[in-house]
Amino acid sequence: MEEQTEMVGRAFVDHYYNLFDNDRSSIGTLYQPSSMLTFESQKLQGSENISAKLNALPFGQCRHAISTIDSQPSSFAGGIIVFVSGSIQLLGEDHPLRFSQMFHLIPTVEGSFFVQNDIFRLNYG
Amino acid sequence: MEEQTEMVGRAFVDHYYNLFDNDRSSIGTLYQPSSMLTFESQKLQGSENISAKLNALPFGQCRHAISTIDSQPSSFAGGIIVFVSGSIQLLGEDHPLRFSQMFHLIPTVEGSFFVQNDIFRLNYG
Repeated sequence: MEEQTEMVGRAFVDHYYNLFDNDRSSIGTLYQPSSMLTFESQKLQGSENISAKLNALPFGQCRHAISTIDSQPSSFAGGIIVFVSGSIQLLGEDHPLRFSQMFHLIPTVEGSFFVQNDIFRLNYG
Repeated sequence: MEEQTEMVGRAFVDHYYNLFDNDRSSIGTLYQPSSMLTFESQKLQGSENISAKLNALPFGQCRHAISTIDSQPSSFAGGIIVFVSGSIQLLGEDHPLRFSQMFHLIPTVEGSFFVQNDIFRLNYG
């Protein structure tokens, strides 16, 4: 069970940042109407609003590099909490930005997962 | 509802780090047998193991300074996810250490909350 939680967490993280970096317009497919995002203290709800926010960020091309992934089962049946640290390299910028982000994943009836909770913060040194 | 979630998150964070900094031997009271802590990738389960770990950390006196608190309702009935960034000043060290931490709080039958999920990571620059 613990191993499966880790596997789901890692697979989700790969998929999420791959979509973010290469096909950001599709990232709304990972959220549902109930989903919540807090992005640098700004609160958004629902896949459409979240997708609009992420696609309107003031940078185009970027590359996420993941440093750590910690996953735990949440108490919600089948839910998984994933905590990520890493950095984002923006096109044309010299230095990557460090960030921390957490996701609460909930199983779908189709046997996949969607993001119910998403909180993102840049780490200032 | 949103305001109440924020209030619970802030009150919990105040209480948690106050206990950690001033009465760390009591911190196990915030956890239950089902609780999980991942501390710098080390996994612990249950209030006794978690309390033992936090009380065996290789520093005595410390002071947490909180930079940001983001809270969201989790999908679990009445649960709250709290995401914290801040720094820890250890006694005798020149520079504080930056950290990120998330808590998943679950309501108790007594009308309070306990920590079901806790993930802690130092932020390296």
